[in-house]
Amino acid sequence: MARIVSIVGLGLLGGSLGMALRQAGYEVVGWDRDAEVMALALERGAIDRAAETLMDAGRASGYLVIVATPVMAIKAVFEAIAPHLAPGTVVSDLASTKRQAAAWARDALRPDTPFVGGHPMAGLEVAGVANARAELFEGAVYCLTIEPGTPQDAVDRLMQLVEAVRARPLVVAPDVHDHLVASISHLPLLASAALVHVTTSDAEWEAMGVLAATGYRDATRLASGDPVMQRDICVTNADEIRPQLLALAEALKQAAGLLDDPEAIGAWLQEAKAARDAWLGAAAKIRQAGRS
Amino acid sequence: MARIVSIVGLGLLGGSLGMALRQAGYEVVGWDRDAEVMALALERGAIDRAAETLMDAGRASGYLVIVATPVMAIKAVFEAIAPHLAPGTVVSDLASTKRQAAAWARDALRPDTPFVGGHPMAGLEVAGVANARAELFEGAVYCLTIEPGTPQDAVDRLMQLVEAVRARPLVVAPDVHDHLVASISHLPLLASAALVHVTTSDAEWEAMGVLAATGYRDATRLASGDPVMQRDICVTNADEIRPQLLALAEALKQAAGLLDDPEAIGAWLQEAKAARDAWLGAAAKIRQAGRS
Repeated sequence: MARIVSIVGLGLLGGSLGMALRQAGYEVVGWDRDAEVMALALERGAIDRAAETLMDAGRASGYLVIVATPVMAIKAVFEAIAPHLAPGTVVSDLASTKRQAAAWARDALRPDTPFVGGHPMAGLEVAGVANARAELFEGAVYCLTIEPGTPQDAVDRLMQLVEAVRARPLVVAPDVHDHLVASISHLPLLASAALVHVTTSDAEWEAMGVLAATGYRDATRLASGDPVMQRDICVTNADEIRPQLLALAEALKQAAGLLDDPEAIGAWLQEAKAARDAWLGAAAKIRQAGRS
Repeated sequence: MARIVSIVGLGLLGGSLGMALRQAGYEVVGWDRDAEVMALALERGAIDRAAETLMDAGRASGYLVIVATPVMAIKAVFEAIAPHLAPGTVVSDLASTKRQAAAWARDALRPDTPFVGGHPMAGLEVAGVANARAELFEGAVYCLTIEPGTPQDAVDRLMQLVEAVRARPLVVAPDVHDHLVASISHLPLLASAALVHVTTSDAEWEAMGVLAATGYRDATRLASGDPVMQRDICVTNADEIRPQLLALAEALKQAAGLLDDPEAIGAWLQEAKAARDAWLGAAAKIRQAGRS
């Protein structure tokens, strides 16, 4: 018998997860607050069937319910489905920050429906189930966040799902997760947006825009992402992001002080290049190992 | 009779320019301080023939000599070739900053061998003539910097060259150029390097590096560029770059103060997205117009 997974929220991530799970032999029930999105998810093969209501989506699985909504909607979904989940159902999510979702799970879910946070480190610049694709998670790191007391069989259930969509599971505590992504995910995002603010608010922006080329495009790419998702990230991880922003501001001031000194600025640039190139090399090695 | 262009310095830009000019019917004489690079430039069709010495490269043209070395080497090249240039030879360069090269030209070149600065807004992450390609400049903005008194026929000669390599000429004053690129080229570069410094010097970097994905890769891409070229940019444009770095530091601090406020940080992110998307749209329109 196919294992049934319910997915609540059928955007790019929820839709892609549905496609990948169906390919791996799971049966997928989906629900979205937008009926047209649900129809498109069915049409595109992201789900086997649409639930009538959010509560029905909670009831339909008994195995695993994944909340794939924006972060700030998760609390309300937990509260709505909690009474309708069969005992033993595992609940997960796909949010970019993990402490807040874990706190809401503690408050809203019953002890017999354990929560394991999930965060696939995958995304696209485009949004919506129209852009969903089964291979979105292939090779990506998929964080699973657990707390003391999370039952091992709940974790195992998620591990199987991660492997089914060909991602690489990484188990961490929610607070460790949020600290790590504040630095390598949220900081680059806000730095991109700040770079756009500084350049486009310049009195000479019109002329600058004509000269701006691929370097500017890549350095600011993250600023074009979904602003609701970005806002929710900021609000739910502010205390981890704030020191990173201030550290980057300090690093920029430090660079400003070195500009005139060829040896000092040369060494500073050389260090950055060496560190990034080392990261690229290590990342390639990890991907390689994942394939063999 | 084919017009002869001499190119001094046969890296990615010099080599690509040679290829593009040869395709457009120019005869190209090349020189590089590295004999192996010259041999490879010949082999790859970047030049028609190699000059015996730097002085010979200066003598060989009578029409146009392009100095395609790193910025900090330009002064010495000007001084070496100046006495050997035929009257009426136009001199240009490909450096990323333009005030310094113009100042060296005023000091070192004779009045009868006028200087027109050049800066093609094109590049690759890879360096060297081994990666040179004739189409590198296609569709790119190619800045020509002139000063009061630059003879119009010298400018026209460069304009023809820019059109021959299918780039889009834009005539600006050197100080305007350096102000504009400080914001949309040098600031993104230093922001990328600063982002690498902050993240890779974190005590948790090892774990962070495992989680870092395409967003981090793109936001830091510029930090992997040629550190000598980057250093020369900083040293020759420090006074324009410094206020930009401090403005970005302020913008990051501003963002840090908004993180807790969903409405404020949401609006700030939304503004950045709108500004970048508008730039992308305008850039696409300009490219489209260039094709028709």
